[in-house]
Amino acid sequence: MLIARYEIDGQIHYGKLEENSLKRCSGSPFATSALSGDVDRLDSVRLLCPVEPPRIFGAGLNYVSHIEEMKLKRPTVPLLFMKPTTAAIGPNEPIVYPREGKEVHFEGELAVIIGRRARRLRENEALDAVFGYTCANDVSERVIQRVEMSMGHLLVGKAYDTFCPMGPVIATGLDPNDLLLETRVNGKVRQSVRTSDLLFSVVELVTYISQATTLLTGDVILTGTPSGIGPIVPGDVVDITIEGVGTLRNPVVAEPSH
Amino acid sequence: MLIARYEIDGQIHYGKLEENSLKRCSGSPFATSALSGDVDRLDSVRLLCPVEPPRIFGAGLNYVSHIEEMKLKRPTVPLLFMKPTTAAIGPNEPIVYPREGKEVHFEGELAVIIGRRARRLRENEALDAVFGYTCANDVSERVIQRVEMSMGHLLVGKAYDTFCPMGPVIATGLDPNDLLLETRVNGKVRQSVRTSDLLFSVVELVTYISQATTLLTGDVILTGTPSGIGPIVPGDVVDITIEGVGTLRNPVVAEPSH
Repeated sequence: MLIARYEIDGQIHYGKLEENSLKRCSGSPFATSALSGDVDRLDSVRLLCPVEPPRIFGAGLNYVSHIEEMKLKRPTVPLLFMKPTTAAIGPNEPIVYPREGKEVHFEGELAVIIGRRARRLRENEALDAVFGYTCANDVSERVIQRVEMSMGHLLVGKAYDTFCPMGPVIATGLDPNDLLLETRVNGKVRQSVRTSDLLFSVVELVTYISQATTLLTGDVILTGTPSGIGPIVPGDVVDITIEGVGTLRNPVVAEPSH
Repeated sequence: MLIARYEIDGQIHYGKLEENSLKRCSGSPFATSALSGDVDRLDSVRLLCPVEPPRIFGAGLNYVSHIEEMKLKRPTVPLLFMKPTTAAIGPNEPIVYPREGKEVHFEGELAVIIGRRARRLRENEALDAVFGYTCANDVSERVIQRVEMSMGHLLVGKAYDTFCPMGPVIATGLDPNDLLLETRVNGKVRQSVRTSDLLFSVVELVTYISQATTLLTGDVILTGTPSGIGPIVPGDVVDITIEGVGTLRNPVVAEPSH
């Protein structure tokens, strides 16, 4: 099932996407699968970020191909950080290249969306706590990121407003273990890998984080980016496509100087 | 002014603390300073974490005395990370020593509570965006923290549920630049320093984070811990006292094994 969050006539709804129609949900799809009976045409709505996450967790260095590209050692535990929720934007919203940005990179990623409160999950329980999946772009300012990581932490380089586009929809009932993930910049393929190349799988990431932290409904876990990362600049358009989910497109714009 | 968040008769209120009375606020004190006219006795309520933060930002290595104690270089930019909001607990609530914990430390800290949305603050605007201050304990599992920081990130070592006690109240109208901060474990003084020893001041931290991230009402910024950090074990009681705020007390308990 594909679930969109969208705005029409100044109201925000969730809806089940079927071809070009959105069947409105009665309330939050995290709580109920009931439909209201109303139907909206896809081309008459504005798609929003499909989730309003209470928290966004991210994993770094989690594709074998990316670790090799960076000439780094494989992490022994998931390399985790958080992105502030104010970084989240939806499909077609602009990624704002910050004034102090020097080297801003795209990172196409599979995002896991948690469906219920959960702590200390066992591996065989992890997927039951997952609501679905979407595409995400873990936009990163590398100069700041390198300074931070050299001191043993990671926040601001990944924290800027608009640095976490997600969408276009949440796909439920998907097997996350072998999906094709592709990133294109201005139409040119830059990343193309299957999620089977993940170092720590979705099950392992969800299980690991839940040992420390009670996961909340709507929490997002970005699973890391594969090889092929590279710079974006104002004027670029980034498309991230995941098999079974769809394509997340965002333009890049410069931040006004004042 | 001292503002408490508390539970009485199954209801949660904010109230203005005056001696042993709590004058109930009409709604959120972030939005209005009006009082409802009701008064509760302090000894008849249960104090709660004084804020429900949308996000918790933390600073590491931010007291000159602590940097010297750790024999580390002064960071050139604030060493920032985030703690999940599920780590927040209130006064008297137990810090749960996790099953896999090997070396859990207290960290007495001044916590800044943001009062309004704000982005790209200038230094002369930063304190206007601050609502008030409270005491916090940035509880940390050092073994995990060291592994994470050696890979250039920091999350799980500071993320466990209950690893962010805050309270007992929010003090408004305080000058944060020269307050005495003391931490006692089982009554014995372990940290005693003035906030004038901060490497990056409250103004600098708020300004710096707001360059990247829109700050939200209720966001918490933990300003870092001074020298004197050390282990806690189940059975201990930690008191953190900040001049003008009061004392945050939390016992430490072991996590049940199943």
